[in-house]
Amino acid sequence: MNNPSKPPEAVSGQFIPTDRTRVRRYPARATYERATIEAILDEGMVCHVGFVHDGHPFVIPTMYVRDGARILIHGSPLSRMLTGAAEGVALCVTVTLLDGVVMARSAFHHSMNYRSVAIVGRAREVVEPAGKLAAMRALVERLIPGRWDDVRQPTPGEMAGTRVLEIPLLEASAKARTGGPVDLTEDESFPVWAGVVPLSLTPGEPIPDAKLAPGIEAPEYVRHWRRSGRRS
Amino acid sequence: MNNPSKPPEAVSGQFIPTDRTRVRRYPARATYERATIEAILDEGMVCHVGFVHDGHPFVIPTMYVRDGARILIHGSPLSRMLTGAAEGVALCVTVTLLDGVVMARSAFHHSMNYRSVAIVGRAREVVEPAGKLAAMRALVERLIPGRWDDVRQPTPGEMAGTRVLEIPLLEASAKARTGGPVDLTEDESFPVWAGVVPLSLTPGEPIPDAKLAPGIEAPEYVRHWRRSGRRS
Repeated sequence: MNNPSKPPEAVSGQFIPTDRTRVRRYPARATYERATIEAILDEGMVCHVGFVHDGHPFVIPTMYVRDGARILIHGSPLSRMLTGAAEGVALCVTVTLLDGVVMARSAFHHSMNYRSVAIVGRAREVVEPAGKLAAMRALVERLIPGRWDDVRQPTPGEMAGTRVLEIPLLEASAKARTGGPVDLTEDESFPVWAGVVPLSLTPGEPIPDAKLAPGIEAPEYVRHWRRSGRRS
Repeated sequence: MNNPSKPPEAVSGQFIPTDRTRVRRYPARATYERATIEAILDEGMVCHVGFVHDGHPFVIPTMYVRDGARILIHGSPLSRMLTGAAEGVALCVTVTLLDGVVMARSAFHHSMNYRSVAIVGRAREVVEPAGKLAAMRALVERLIPGRWDDVRQPTPGEMAGTRVLEIPLLEASAKARTGGPVDLTEDESFPVWAGVVPLSLTPGEPIPDAKLAPGIEAPEYVRHWRRSGRRS
């Protein structure tokens, strides 16, 4: 196992796989390319943060944003995750995008198309007010680009009521399955439909707040909201 | 901390919260109701499994199915997760459904609507051939109801190439955020649109395999595929 205090640097657009990030199952589906990893992180909206508390693993979903070579998450000062994470405990942050249901001719080869990234490392709490504010802005803007300048800005009390953590993007790997089913050659004549049902997380019609004052129209970024980083 | 060898029983349709499953952050969003927990588990398609390996947490996405009072997952005998899990290590299995982007009038109250379940416990490997086959059937059928009987059944070699784990559904909690933004009363007159953009994971047009023999039409369960358990 690597010394967690000395994570390897990413070089030439590639992360260096470590014992903790090297993909073992279906290694052909793995990549350590920075561009691929960043694209997945920029498309996801929720990460699953794994941490150890009293010897037991916990996995909690939370919003995040990639900001350069770090991941930012935020939350209540009361949360079990943030308390542990702020103390520099080891974390694993995983982001998964579901892309399709893969129907093969054999039961065994049914699968899903997906893209995922796992990052391991230790968090640092962002405590500087300017850094916390920038993180909150980045979290809102990645969810709804153009939103920040339109809304009521945080008060000192709200800033105090939020903790922000950054996890360095140093040890990371991506894994993806794409394309159609992969059947054995002898199964290709099996008389059943095979292929993929693509999946995507799609927005519905915006639902105005019940207390919305008359005459306030939904802005462009609401009417045509789409996932930041979404391909096409 | 509870003795992991004696998880509490669920009674009267409620799970008993333990130190490990009691929700601390926004406890008003938590529920321990079996019906709610099962509905979330039955709608999700991928879980995030957290486990500890060499002292470090790992979080890996994988397909699963709820089968009564247990969760079934499967995978390659080579996987880091299954190797550890089969030895009875502690796991946390988290399922998250994203339901919407919540736009408040204040930056601080922006949020997401979601439903999630976290299960903690220890896995047991299912080794009996009949039990493994039933698990594989359940995994395929929950993904594509009606599929199993149409496809080529598993060979003994394929069965040997799959490990199946069951995690008891004994210690579990759900957490959800629903509805519109919650702004401070004094913010309600702030002149900006507020509301929710709903999100759902939706299927696209089925893509036939490039090697599909002519004349094989997509069956009803492909043409109108929808998530098992999905609320219409």
